[in-house]
Amino acid sequence: MDYLQLSQKYQTPLYVYDFDYIASRYNALKSAFNARKSLICYAVKANSNLSLLRHMATLGAGFDCVSIGEIKRALLAGAKPYQVIFSGVGKSDAEIKEALQNEILMINVEGESELDRVEMIAKMLVKKARISIRVNPDVDAKTHPYISTGLNKNKFGVDINTAKKMYLKAKNSNHLEPIGIHFHIGSQITEISSIIEAANIVSVLMRELKALEIDIKFFDVGGGIGIVYKDENEVNLYEYAQGILAALGGQDVTIVCEPGRYIVGNCGTLITSVLYEKFNKDKRFVVVDAAMNDLLRPSLYEAHHEIISLKDGEKSNCDIVGPICESGDFLAKDIKLPRLQNSDILVVKSAGAYGFSMSSNYNTRGRAAEVAIQNGTDRLIRRRESFEDIIALEKDYL
Amino acid sequence: MDYLQLSQKYQTPLYVYDFDYIASRYNALKSAFNARKSLICYAVKANSNLSLLRHMATLGAGFDCVSIGEIKRALLAGAKPYQVIFSGVGKSDAEIKEALQNEILMINVEGESELDRVEMIAKMLVKKARISIRVNPDVDAKTHPYISTGLNKNKFGVDINTAKKMYLKAKNSNHLEPIGIHFHIGSQITEISSIIEAANIVSVLMRELKALEIDIKFFDVGGGIGIVYKDENEVNLYEYAQGILAALGGQDVTIVCEPGRYIVGNCGTLITSVLYEKFNKDKRFVVVDAAMNDLLRPSLYEAHHEIISLKDGEKSNCDIVGPICESGDFLAKDIKLPRLQNSDILVVKSAGAYGFSMSSNYNTRGRAAEVAIQNGTDRLIRRRESFEDIIALEKDYL
Ligand SMILES: Cc1ncc(COP(=O)(O)O)c(C=O)c1O
Ligand SMILES: Cc1ncc(COP(=O)(O)O)c(C=O)c1O
Repeated sequence: MDYLQLSQKYQTPLYVYDFDYIASRYNALKSAFNARKSLICYAVKANSNLSLLRHMATLGAGFDCVSIGEIKRALLAGAKPYQVIFSGVGKSDAEIKEALQNEILMINVEGESELDRVEMIAKMLVKKARISIRVNPDVDAKTHPYISTGLNKNKFGVDINTAKKMYLKAKNSNHLEPIGIHFHIGSQITEISSIIEAANIVSVLMRELKALEIDIKFFDVGGGIGIVYKDENEVNLYEYAQGILAALGGQDVTIVCEPGRYIVGNCGTLITSVLYEKFNKDKRFVVVDAAMNDLLRPSLYEAHHEIISLKDGEKSNCDIVGPICESGDFLAKDIKLPRLQNSDILVVKSAGAYGFSMSSNYNTRGRAAEVAIQNGTDRLIRRRESFEDIIALEKDYL
Repeated sequence: MDYLQLSQKYQTPLYVYDFDYIASRYNALKSAFNARKSLICYAVKANSNLSLLRHMATLGAGFDCVSIGEIKRALLAGAKPYQVIFSGVGKSDAEIKEALQNEILMINVEGESELDRVEMIAKMLVKKARISIRVNPDVDAKTHPYISTGLNKNKFGVDINTAKKMYLKAKNSNHLEPIGIHFHIGSQITEISSIIEAANIVSVLMRELKALEIDIKFFDVGGGIGIVYKDENEVNLYEYAQGILAALGGQDVTIVCEPGRYIVGNCGTLITSVLYEKFNKDKRFVVVDAAMNDLLRPSLYEAHHEIISLKDGEKSNCDIVGPICESGDFLAKDIKLPRLQNSDILVVKSAGAYGFSMSSNYNTRGRAAEVAIQNGTDRLIRRRESFEDIIALEKDYL
């Protein structure tokens, strides 16, 4: 990829996504479940650009959404409603209503009071709400605590016994139709044995439900497949799929999975320009034009992103920092790069997931532009945010 | 303040700012420097709403800006250019140029290579750039490492010796006019002795510069005055001002300070509605409609915000969490609140600074509306972000 040319054509900071890579990742995952009915529901939160969603829809993907905004994005991008799932621990009444009206595949219910509200709203709409229930299998995903979600001390899902109670209630309701079962134990999981462990636990529950004449059709194993940022092991998709199939032990269901990071994490880079180099005592700082408002992960999760220089030279240690007035505004610490100067280009790797989607206007910085590369050509898929864009919702009240 | 009525009138999540409180804080700080020339430059980054900036301008405040976006906001809101300072560790050429063209008071230079670029750009514009230099006094502010900025291992400013060199260079340049000296050692500083310590160090430097016939007119002590979130001591403004005056030891300069949090932190609340209560094993969660995209501070800095319920009742421990699919999405942990249900209102205190300004569209959530209260009346100062607003920069490329 010609980063230099892209940086000149579109300016920096700039997010660039390789759509062909996305296709290869989607196809690899889809093939891993080859022999079985499967639905890959891309987790929109990871990167919700409309053109990227359209690309996923064209590949045949479904969508895992966590807000009515994400559902609207997916539908606008061409998603088929019966391939859209609505997850999330805090759905408002208005969101539930609109989801039901859009006839999506199912609402993934995360608690008892939510089940009651879904039932109530379905009744009001004279509908039967297709639901799944998110089970919290109390399995440790061994990842960053902020993105670990499968332990009982987390806010997500319900324990096995509560789930059973809820399924029975749903079965006996005129306005609920339990068709799925769901878990998601965390993100950036590189030891897939924890996902398999959870699959085994939830599969046992599914079998018990069958005995109660609750016929689950969708077995949703969530997302969370880890990717290589630095020296992680690439997850073996064959083992992942085989582990899940083994856990099912012959039960005839459609396997749903909700990958976000796995599909888009390594499709994306953030291109940034060097503004200055500076030394404070012995410490070397490279100040660049991308900041924590563009990519929050290093600051929020102490996440590692490889950063490469387009220029060669003898390398020495430095911190890569942004222009924001906080020490927490860094993209990398203590990495080795050649000496750099104004206008040199750096490329921040693995920035396709949870990059742009978490970006903000902090320090009144306009958000970056986004570009897609497909079949060797580049195109803008979101324009750079201007000052006028930033103040648009305020200026009329001044 | 009638939070219930505000929540009904404007919906939730909602930021509400008390403009009268802002005035009282501004006036208190201004009076603390009573006997001396002073300029209070409000740090726009803390809360950059245009109407709030206009309010500050009306009170007579200047503005401390860290991007051209913030400068444009300040000017649009009615700031006088000669009361605007441009700080920040990563100013681009375009930003420097526009700042010079706008004839602001001074550019606060943070490094040697930046000084060269400012000189070069001023030359190109056939101007003389008024500058100050940010000195890093190597003083520990004893605050959260992410917002501590006064140590040499931070990216900010330059050490004393480098500063001297730069002042001499500026003095001898036809396109630079050194008129200020600046430090800012961190944010949320409750032990002001560290600010005073820094003031003493920088004051000595200023005296040395005087001997070199570099006549500093503005002594900028930065921001960073801590506020009460929980059980912190309220900073004594009299001691603060006296400490700075004592450090100056009679040098005749205008004292500049750049408070952000001190002015707006406790003017603001975030009003949120309860969606559900849920129990996972023994743990109680209150899921609300505000999330880490609305208020990042708890997640990013483990910051504490008081949360009060409009409803009474027997209290028990709970976590207040948002609808975002991350365990890091919480507003408070292990606080005591009465039992709550859908539509109950919670008020998150001390949310006026680094609240809305750090908010994002993560999970395709529209950003909250903002409301000002002044003289007993409320008015919208930023409307709630809609789905159409969120996708506006993308949809034309679909
Ligand atoms: C319910 C659910 N599904 C899927 C995902 C996607 O996770 P990942 O990007 O790690 O695959 C998440 C992430 O938070 C989630 O909460
Ligand atoms: C240079 C400068 N001045 C002023 C401030 C405002 O700090 P506070 O809000 O703590 O007063 C900051 C905050 O980061 C800053 O970096």
